[in-house]
Amino acid sequence: MLAVVKTAKAPGVTLSQIPLPKAAKNEVLIKVKGASICGTDISIYDWTPWADGHIKNVPLVIGHEVVGEIIDINTSENTHLKKGDLVSSETHIFDNTCYQCLINNRHICEHMELFGIGRNGGFAEYATIPLRTTWKNTAKIPIEAMSAQEPLGNAVHVCEKANVAGKTVAVFGLGPVGLCAVAVAKAYGAKKVIGINRGEYRRNLAIKMGADEVYSELPKEYINKCEVVLEMSGNSEVIGQSLGAARIAGTIVFFGIPKKEAVIDIGKYFINKELTAKSVFGRKIWQTWYQTSDLLDEGKVDLSKIVTHKFKLEEFEKAMEIMKSGECGKIVLIP
Amino acid sequence: MLAVVKTAKAPGVTLSQIPLPKAAKNEVLIKVKGASICGTDISIYDWTPWADGHIKNVPLVIGHEVVGEIIDINTSENTHLKKGDLVSSETHIFDNTCYQCLINNRHICEHMELFGIGRNGGFAEYATIPLRTTWKNTAKIPIEAMSAQEPLGNAVHVCEKANVAGKTVAVFGLGPVGLCAVAVAKAYGAKKVIGINRGEYRRNLAIKMGADEVYSELPKEYINKCEVVLEMSGNSEVIGQSLGAARIAGTIVFFGIPKKEAVIDIGKYFINKELTAKSVFGRKIWQTWYQTSDLLDEGKVDLSKIVTHKFKLEEFEKAMEIMKSGECGKIVLIP
Amino acid sequence: MLAVVKTAKAPGVTLSQIPLPKAAKNEVLIKVKGASICGTDISIYDWTPWADGHIKNVPLVIGHEVVGEIIDINTSENTHLKKGDLVSSETHIFDNTCYQCLINNRHICEHMELFGIGRNGGFAEYATIPLRTTWKNTAKIPIEAMSAQEPLGNAVHVCEKANVAGKTVAVFGLGPVGLCAVAVAKAYGAKKVIGINRGEYRRNLAIKMGADEVYSELPKEYINKCEVVLEMSGNSEVIGQSLGAARIAGTIVFFGIPKKEAVIDIGKYFINKELTAKSVFGRKIWQTWYQTSDLLDEGKVDLSKIVTHKFKLEEFEKAMEIMKSGECGKIVLIP
Amino acid sequence: MLAVVKTAKAPGVTLSQIPLPKAAKNEVLIKVKGASICGTDISIYDWTPWADGHIKNVPLVIGHEVVGEIIDINTSENTHLKKGDLVSSETHIFDNTCYQCLINNRHICEHMELFGIGRNGGFAEYATIPLRTTWKNTAKIPIEAMSAQEPLGNAVHVCEKANVAGKTVAVFGLGPVGLCAVAVAKAYGAKKVIGINRGEYRRNLAIKMGADEVYSELPKEYINKCEVVLEMSGNSEVIGQSLGAARIAGTIVFFGIPKKEAVIDIGKYFINKELTAKSVFGRKIWQTWYQTSDLLDEGKVDLSKIVTHKFKLEEFEKAMEIMKSGECGKIVLIP
Repeated sequence: MLAVVKTAKAPGVTLSQIPLPKAAKNEVLIKVKGASICGTDISIYDWTPWADGHIKNVPLVIGHEVVGEIIDINTSENTHLKKGDLVSSETHIFDNTCYQCLINNRHICEHMELFGIGRNGGFAEYATIPLRTTWKNTAKIPIEAMSAQEPLGNAVHVCEKANVAGKTVAVFGLGPVGLCAVAVAKAYGAKKVIGINRGEYRRNLAIKMGADEVYSELPKEYINKCEVVLEMSGNSEVIGQSLGAARIAGTIVFFGIPKKEAVIDIGKYFINKELTAKSVFGRKIWQTWYQTSDLLDEGKVDLSKIVTHKFKLEEFEKAMEIMKSGECGKIVLIP
Repeated sequence: MLAVVKTAKAPGVTLSQIPLPKAAKNEVLIKVKGASICGTDISIYDWTPWADGHIKNVPLVIGHEVVGEIIDINTSENTHLKKGDLVSSETHIFDNTCYQCLINNRHICEHMELFGIGRNGGFAEYATIPLRTTWKNTAKIPIEAMSAQEPLGNAVHVCEKANVAGKTVAVFGLGPVGLCAVAVAKAYGAKKVIGINRGEYRRNLAIKMGADEVYSELPKEYINKCEVVLEMSGNSEVIGQSLGAARIAGTIVFFGIPKKEAVIDIGKYFINKELTAKSVFGRKIWQTWYQTSDLLDEGKVDLSKIVTHKFKLEEFEKAMEIMKSGECGKIVLIP
Repeated sequence: MLAVVKTAKAPGVTLSQIPLPKAAKNEVLIKVKGASICGTDISIYDWTPWADGHIKNVPLVIGHEVVGEIIDINTSENTHLKKGDLVSSETHIFDNTCYQCLINNRHICEHMELFGIGRNGGFAEYATIPLRTTWKNTAKIPIEAMSAQEPLGNAVHVCEKANVAGKTVAVFGLGPVGLCAVAVAKAYGAKKVIGINRGEYRRNLAIKMGADEVYSELPKEYINKCEVVLEMSGNSEVIGQSLGAARIAGTIVFFGIPKKEAVIDIGKYFINKELTAKSVFGRKIWQTWYQTSDLLDEGKVDLSKIVTHKFKLEEFEKAMEIMKSGECGKIVLIP
Repeated sequence: MLAVVKTAKAPGVTLSQIPLPKAAKNEVLIKVKGASICGTDISIYDWTPWADGHIKNVPLVIGHEVVGEIIDINTSENTHLKKGDLVSSETHIFDNTCYQCLINNRHICEHMELFGIGRNGGFAEYATIPLRTTWKNTAKIPIEAMSAQEPLGNAVHVCEKANVAGKTVAVFGLGPVGLCAVAVAKAYGAKKVIGINRGEYRRNLAIKMGADEVYSELPKEYINKCEVVLEMSGNSEVIGQSLGAARIAGTIVFFGIPKKEAVIDIGKYFINKELTAKSVFGRKIWQTWYQTSDLLDEGKVDLSKIVTHKFKLEEFEKAMEIMKSGECGKIVLIP
């Protein structure tokens, strides 16, 4: 089958014909119907220090946001899944045996394995997924938008933690997850949502997703005025600005992972304003997926607005180029 | 009367005879019975940038942790206070009219005035306090420990926010508030409290206050193992270590105000562990004062253990010298 | 001036000409511009046991939901209020000295005095209000809807406590506050809001306020399916049904005050579903008023839709008759 | 093997020799080392309506609080358990596939099977337990106290939900779980714990477990004075008294399951005090078990103080007689 493969611990990927995978014990085999590109995939493509720290073995089929149809199931346990089901993959493969898993924090498992990073993923014609991280799709949305449920889930988790209802919400960074956060914040009753992003293309997308106002940087009149700040940029230079936006007694949620350390004035930004900072890693398993499906089914979030490009798997290099330009929303690969 | 006065915007203080103050409208006049030295008073003494930013007018009577007897009350409003009452001062003089005050966040008032910093304080024989920040003492404790209720209140607020019951708690920085935090964390049901401080003198005091273990720096076996971390050091170099101590899904409370910016790896310390950071400014007015009185009355916190030195007001320079050495707990001035 | 007066501890009221009141110390005198009738006013009219327990002194000017213009202010303290301001009255006159007031729970003061119940209220041409319970209106809405901010505040407090975003919400009882709760739940991001009320008139109003579905009683398919239940009926017979609607791990908020005791199966309804029940008394002072203004200013709640009737003060008996019929939303009296 | 068997849907039990059970798929077989009697076992013995509603099939080996040694494991999946491990049983056998299990609420599974109630339990020489509800004991406590970890877990979950640190806590009902709640509330930092129970025997045990004060009924001076109320009596007549004990803005936790419906004045007890009622069903899986182990290992709760009686399995009838008298703490059966 055709697959996007990381063949060496170095920049770039290879489009290769590789053998069809088999479902290992307690796994499903799916025929991939769609797979979307995440910012993480850029890091893997470029072989950043993050990629070097997380990818242990090559060759590796990359890609973790996928939707597909179950072709085979290999298990002797009971399961609600069956052949023909249209499923998505939860990227975070928890071990179900560590302390965090045992206290119901599976999404922050102590021994997490990552789909498409620590093991083969889904930029391919077929893929295998552990039963325990396979989500049976129920949302009545186009298949091409289904792989984007995973990043939408990030945004749902962020907004759920932030408790946005009735609040002025600033979203820093309008990549696909930031764009989803704009839509979810509005759906969950935010008073006003303002989006901040350097590039104009994504500011325009934010307006389509429901942002009340967008800016290239935070206007002065919003300094110390936002009850909720969502840090989705992953840019360490932006974090001071984000903290500055927060109102006394406000809440900031960290989601973006900066490449460099951030320099923070704890007294000015945390203590004097008595801020609370929460952090989000992935999505709650499976609570967030249910919430995500609900938002899609009610039409409160329309993922098709941010799926700006579709490419064949063969066109991966072209897709990656556009992805890096920032002149896109979500890019979906159709094998 | 004798008073410790900041006479110039420069290092040092002057012991001066100044006129007896009068209670302005809605103020009480107290005869000071005790006043304790805070870390902030060192900043004021040394004239740090923080002091330069906060002190607008000199001459200024410094000192904000005080206990005294009401000599006079100037008000036409009803009040529960009367002459002869033994009272303490809440340092944070809220305006009662800003948005935060109106939504019940008086302790983080938007226009806070600071007793002994923005207006005359209590290192003197007499002092005036606004009615609305005067606390009538009820705790059955020695008068000499009463001025330390104010910093104990900081520790109570920190532990209340951290929700320590049943948790392993690391306290970074064992100055007087850190020492109080050790005692309060134990009183509020922490599983284990470990104290980290460079100086040995205060590590020994922490043991007296109930710490289970003390260290000059965090032992490796506690990295990623503390459900709760209390950052009381105000040392930007220590903050990375503090964040490293936190367990996945843990909580850190920032209380100490570092002189320099902290350099923080957001991805490693916040997102990958999905940490929550809370911040504490002062004490809740008056909720924390009630909680503080309860802890003292039940004997769960014994402030006399950390009142290590007593001096006359005239001996202020000597007191400050010991304060700066770190070889002390709380130092109380008796006018 | 003309006023609706309770002259005897018995059913009925009298329309009387009484002397113009004067602002006592720390009070304002207002010219009443509008006043709306609350369910409590029916109890007072009918002289129920509740009325007998709460009204100590007659004659009494009744009515507590009012808006008016400040004609006079009597105080020697600083205040942001001035003559000509358009203000509303917070019904709950807290004493500012009890334990609950001191710990920032003014809305559940231990020695609450009630405007229009424990002291003269606002169904009159003029009224006096304590400074500390006078709200300066900022919402850009018609004056005739302004008195209804007070009951809207109840609904805001209820929805705030219930945390409705993304949830299926059942509202039992569609009186004016229930109708407001429907609108607020939608504004704060509820997934679906269903309203339950016996009378058809108010079910139709609920649809206008944004209810997704309305029923005369809970359909079977919603039993154990609502994450949030708002008990606004104040009908003890309905409470079992309300508890039955709640999903496992759900939340019910009690707001309506039943005339009789409720008979509750604690095991079935609370423990087996591990429910949380919260209760709402009034509104948070002043947090809820700010939230209420925001919702009105954003146009998320349109109070004019539930102001179904307007009467002159002289027509009070006619207004009360319609109020009792249940065939109305909010009834506003215009002096 | 010898077992306590419910042979008919009627009062009483039979001591029978029955075949040794075999571990079904994904189960362990244990040699029972100790098993304690729960209040539920009285209901089953007496065949109350509750028992009739929950027990579908007889003959049934009763008993659900057990500790034993693993003799056999039947699974093809990975497991941390091995022969020789000393394990306890979690009573609530969640299905791991329902909505509540999937959103991390396994302890309130929608299709819960109950060990010793819906399937054979542990009052026998041997028993089988599903792998997923088998807890490997780590607490360094006498084996005879280990079966009581399960009810201690109830108390931990109750106190965790109640947030008792610094609060005055009233515990209504001093059966074994109520006694545990007294000890846990003290360990988690309650200011004062008062126990209320009709029988003197258990009031004396409460003192041993750390209660500050005990009463046969709530003294008047505690009405409206307890920030936290733990309803452990399961007596519908006591519930009004419990609600009366709660302070304004207080929290009550319902744990005991009354045989009859409770008659509750919602206005007086809930709304006027703006109470929060939480409910506890079982224990969090496995968070509560970790917390329970911690409390035992630290010596903060000493279960041996409430293990007042030990009997051989053959003496079950005698044990049940004492259990019903209320003149006991926990009764442990040693096969």
